[in-house]
This record gives sequence, structure tokens and C-alpha cells, in this order.
Amino acid sequence: MVDGRGVDAVADALESRDATAFVHVGDRWDADLGYVAGVGGGARERAYVQTAGGERYYCPPPGRADVAFDGTVVSAGEFDARAAGERAAAVLDGDGGTVLVPRAIPHDAAVYLERAGFDVASTAALDRARAVKTPSERERLRAVQSAASTGLDRARAVLGAATPTGDGLRYEGDPLTAERLRRAVNAALAGAGVDPVGNTVVAGASGRGDARLTAGEPVVVDVAPRGRAGYHGRLARTVVADTDGGWERRAHLAVTSALDVGVAELAAGTPVRRAREEALAELVAYGFDAGAASVHGIGRSPREAPAGASDTPLEAGQVVGLAPGVTDPVEGTVRVADAAVVTADGAEFLADHATGLAPTR
Amino acid sequence: MVDGRGVDAVADALESRDATAFVHVGDRWDADLGYVAGVGGGARERAYVQTAGGERYYCPPPGRADVAFDGTVVSAGEFDARAAGERAAAVLDGDGGTVLVPRAIPHDAAVYLERAGFDVASTAALDRARAVKTPSERERLRAVQSAASTGLDRARAVLGAATPTGDGLRYEGDPLTAERLRRAVNAALAGAGVDPVGNTVVAGASGRGDARLTAGEPVVVDVAPRGRAGYHGRLARTVVADTDGGWERRAHLAVTSALDVGVAELAAGTPVRRAREEALAELVAYGFDAGAASVHGIGRSPREAPAGASDTPLEAGQVVGLAPGVTDPVEGTVRVADAAVVTADGAEFLADHATGLAPTR
Repeated sequence: MVDGRGVDAVADALESRDATAFVHVGDRWDADLGYVAGVGGGARERAYVQTAGGERYYCPPPGRADVAFDGTVVSAGEFDARAAGERAAAVLDGDGGTVLVPRAIPHDAAVYLERAGFDVASTAALDRARAVKTPSERERLRAVQSAASTGLDRARAVLGAATPTGDGLRYEGDPLTAERLRRAVNAALAGAGVDPVGNTVVAGASGRGDARLTAGEPVVVDVAPRGRAGYHGRLARTVVADTDGGWERRAHLAVTSALDVGVAELAAGTPVRRAREEALAELVAYGFDAGAASVHGIGRSPREAPAGASDTPLEAGQVVGLAPGVTDPVEGTVRVADAAVVTADGAEFLADHATGLAPTR
Repeated sequence: MVDGRGVDAVADALESRDATAFVHVGDRWDADLGYVAGVGGGARERAYVQTAGGERYYCPPPGRADVAFDGTVVSAGEFDARAAGERAAAVLDGDGGTVLVPRAIPHDAAVYLERAGFDVASTAALDRARAVKTPSERERLRAVQSAASTGLDRARAVLGAATPTGDGLRYEGDPLTAERLRRAVNAALAGAGVDPVGNTVVAGASGRGDARLTAGEPVVVDVAPRGRAGYHGRLARTVVADTDGGWERRAHLAVTSALDVGVAELAAGTPVRRAREEALAELVAYGFDAGAASVHGIGRSPREAPAGASDTPLEAGQVVGLAPGVTDPVEGTVRVADAAVVTADGAEFLADHATGLAPTR
């Protein structure tokens, strides 16, 4: 589960800043902690310590000794009420010096370190390391994205089988609301082994979950599930059960073209913001002046480095999500989103999912 | 979405500690933030500020202005790179004084407040307030627990329909592994509108996900899903596809009896730890000396106040999970878990789910 890149990045940061140790505290799904310590075992806070000497310590939640960790496990009794940060400070038992922490370490952990005589300074070493994915991380991201595709297939199947009636679509005899479709998509995601983690958006023109979907209405289905190893996918499509070829078809042409143009700008050495700017320009070229085009890295966090507005050149191995969309106050929203891994001379989608507006894929 | 109890608890803490303001920063699912600010809108960090004068401010993620908030929304442009904590400190623009924060506020937010001239001190006011649930919170918890019950029904249905073969159970023609059953349970949870959020455990005797389940093997199915409003359920049962009445039946009798005995100890005024002690004593009475009995509050966090080892008397409206279990190195684990709301003279289960060891409910 642990990627050596995280441990190495911390070691480099400790050396270059002449620091004593690195400490982090978080829950099971904390992106930095999972990356550098890589352990499961309950949902409660746990701590990780890495010293300048290369020792690595893991303080699991109280009562959890059964963790696989390539270092020293510092277990606590079931009724040890001390916070994980206090236990981490006790591990260091130090002669002072600087302790590096991620900016979002819980404040109490930083205070425990200060009380133990350390200077606390923040480091973005793990953010930077996490931005570039190793081959095994890319494999996990592809697997999650493939499961995300299953969720969208389910949305297409339901919308394709739904029957138009005078007061909206019906599916298997009952009214089809946005919330009902959201649940069907999430069930497909869960069945494919990934967790929706509250990120799934299913929205018709009104944006309301209890609204009945109608035949000519664009329905955005946007998912960013998390796989068991902690990595996220990102996939969105807009589907219309029975399009009459009006606004939504033009809007769909604009957003799919913007997605293609944006992805075509992704390559090692190109500034991140170029993809966003070109996608927005494409929306404008199609007559949509007020479009949006979110661009961001994807990994253990559904939104991480590189940031879409950044001038920083992309690096091979970064995984970037693009989500161009246009909204009309009456017609609704049409959005597509996809994720691609940056290569030396371009980018490759993590998974191949058709962009078609019709329910059938 | 917001419960007035959180705002009141912060106001009381500000007054009693003569503090200037309360600040918190977290993501969409942060338990304290959801409780006191109660807003959705993306997964990124956002900030909440409540002053001693009673003003309430919400700083949504950059580019998100579309939030419903009963106070002042301090929007940021799409490319505002400032952290939520920095934006919160700017809202206060202060003359110094003490700012109260939850202990787990991201450290950088506390540092921004200190740089702005404030003393930062932690408060557990929201932890305490959250422990006692209002009628509307209890209603949400009941709804999530009812959805959790759907997940367990699905596990029973799959195990009940599975066919024993020489090398393990088969279901719908394919081998039934723990992981396959976990996915089926999660699909049922998602279909019922709640999110498994990585908490679902499905474990046969080996504890391995890729292990094929067998006919006489106890299978623990333990879920703690999260509903859309942010509240968690907790329900676990152990099911045996075709019990031969041996160890697992005695173990099951012990844990279900321990659950009953533990719940019977729950009542306003009784120390929390009593439930745990009585449940453990019951396991011993059945001959299981090394049993476990986790007891903890449940709400916006799957594990919150009251803590199971506490001497503090329970209060009416607290919601407590109990999870007695026994493990044998050869036979495996038998565990049940349930959640009950504490009343003036006892406790009531959030949902009614049979404890039977057989697949049929």
C-alpha cells in the first residue's frame, strides 16, 4: 500500500530543511497519511512519525495492534485516551529541533509537538510527491475509473429503459426522480467495488433530487468514487432520454469538443492552465460565453495538485481531471468530465467511456 | 440542516471563556462543521466563523457562491488560492482576543489566526453538544439505521440462496467470496440511499476478502453507512449459511445475550462504562473470557462522545452503539452490533433487525 515516493519525499524534506522529524495525524482516509504510512484499521485518528535518521513509527488507534506496517508499531491500550498527536510527540521524546508537518495536521497535534519542545513548520513535500503517480498508482486509478464507468452505464441503462409519460419518466412502473437515479448509480458503483463517498451528483434541469426527470431534459451524472486503496475516479456524462435536438445537442457538442481540446493540451512541460483556457475558448467558439471548465489533479484526494490555474508545467505521470460544462437558466446544465494521465507527449484517458448524449452507449 | 444546539453551544462557550470568536475549517463531511454550519457544495475545505456578537460567516470553497446559509456568505473567486483558514482570519480582521477552535482544526488555520493577532484556544463545546441528539437528529439516525438494515437483509438473502459445494459456497453460479458479498451489501446500502464510506466489513473465518466462504463458517457483516445529512448508522450481524450448531451457536448466544444485557444498562444517569462492563461479564458467563465489547456514541462521526470507558452519566437523547464479539483462532469471529437511543428510563434500538444466526431473518 505504501509508495516509497512518499517516504523518500519526506526524507528529502527533512534533510533540506535540517529538521528532526516529520509527523502527521489523520484518519484512515487522510490522503497524506495513506500515501506515506498506508495502513487501515478502523476510522479513528492515527499518527505517523518519520525521523531524520530514517526510523518510521506508526501509532494506530487505541486497541488496534493488528496493523501491517513496515516500521515500528507503537500500540496503545484500548482505553488510552491520549490523542494520536500526543502519542506521536511522546515517540519523539526529543531534544528539540524542527518537526515538519502537512499544513492540515490537526492543530492539537501541532500543539503537543510544541509543548514537547519542537518548532513546528509545515511542508508540502507530500502534496508535491502525490501529484505524480507511479505505475502502480496509475493502475489503481484506472481500476477506479473503470468502476466509475459502470456507474454511468447504469444511468444510461435506466434512462434508456424509462418510459415517457405526461408527467415525466417512469422506470419499472414508478416515477423516475433524480434521487432514484442517483441511488441506482451508487448501487452500481458499490457493486463494482468502489465507494460513492457522497460525491455522486445526478441533476436534471431543476437540480432538485425529488424532481421527476422528463424525456427531453439533460441529466448530468457526475461521479468521483473512491476505491479501497484510497484513490478516486472522476467521470461525468450528460444523458437525455429522448432528445429533440435543441439546446442540449448544441451544448453537448460544445462540452465534448471542449473536453477533447482540453485533453489535447495535456502533455509534460505544458502549463496546467493551458488545458483550462483552451477548453473555455472552445465553449466560447460554440457560442457559450459563460461556460465553466474545472481542471484539477486526482488521486487520494478527489481534487489535489496540480491546480487548474497553475502556470507550473505538467509532469508525466500526473493525473488530471477536466470538467467542461455550460448552464442555461431554463434548459439546465450539460457537463462532461473525464480524467487522463499525462505522458511525455500527450495524455491518455484512464478509461474509455463514450460521450454520447443518448442513453445507449 | 443546521441544528440550533451547535450555534447555542458555541455562543455559550464564547461567553463563558470571554472569547472573541469561534472558527472552524473542514471539508464537507467534517462532523463539527456540518453540525454548526450545515452546508454542502463540493468536497473542498470551507470555514465557519461565529463571533461573540452573534454574527455567523461562511467561507465556501473558491468559486462556490451557491450555498444556503443562515448568515453571511463570504464568497471567493474561482482562483482564490488562499486557504479557508486564511479567509476566515480575514473575516475577523480583529483587535486581538481569544479565538476558540475545535481541537482538530487544520493547523494552518490556527496559524493564520495567530498571525492575525489572536490567541487560539481549543473548545470541546461542539463535541459535547453533538453527543445529545435532538428529535430531528434521532429521526435521521433512525433513517440511516433502517437503510443499514437493508444491507444486512441483502447479506442474509445472498447467503441463504448460496449453494454449498466441495470447495465453498456458490451464488448465482460463481464462487462466493467475502469481497463479493461485501460488494452486494454495499450495493444494497447505496440503493437505499446511504453511503458505505469504506466502513463495511464482511469477514469469514480467515478474514481475507478473496477467501471463498463456506457453509458452516460464521460470516460477520458489519456496516456503518453515512446518510446524506451526514449521520451514521451501525449494525452488525453474524450469519452462518448452514450451521452445524457447534462453536458458532454458543458464541452467537453469548454475543446476542451480551448485546441485550448491555442495552439494558443504558439509561439516563447510568455511567457509560456500565453497559460495556455488563456486556463483557455476560460473555465471560458464557465461557468467553477474551471477548470484546466496543461501546461508543454515534452521530455525524461513526464514533463520537460518549466514550465507552467513561464514568460520565448517560443523558437522554444520546445514541450509543454496542458491539460485543468473540473470536476463536480456528472458528473465526462472531459479532453483533446495534445502536440505541438513551431515554429517561432505558434505551430504544434505532431500528429493529433480527439477531438470528440463520440467513433467513
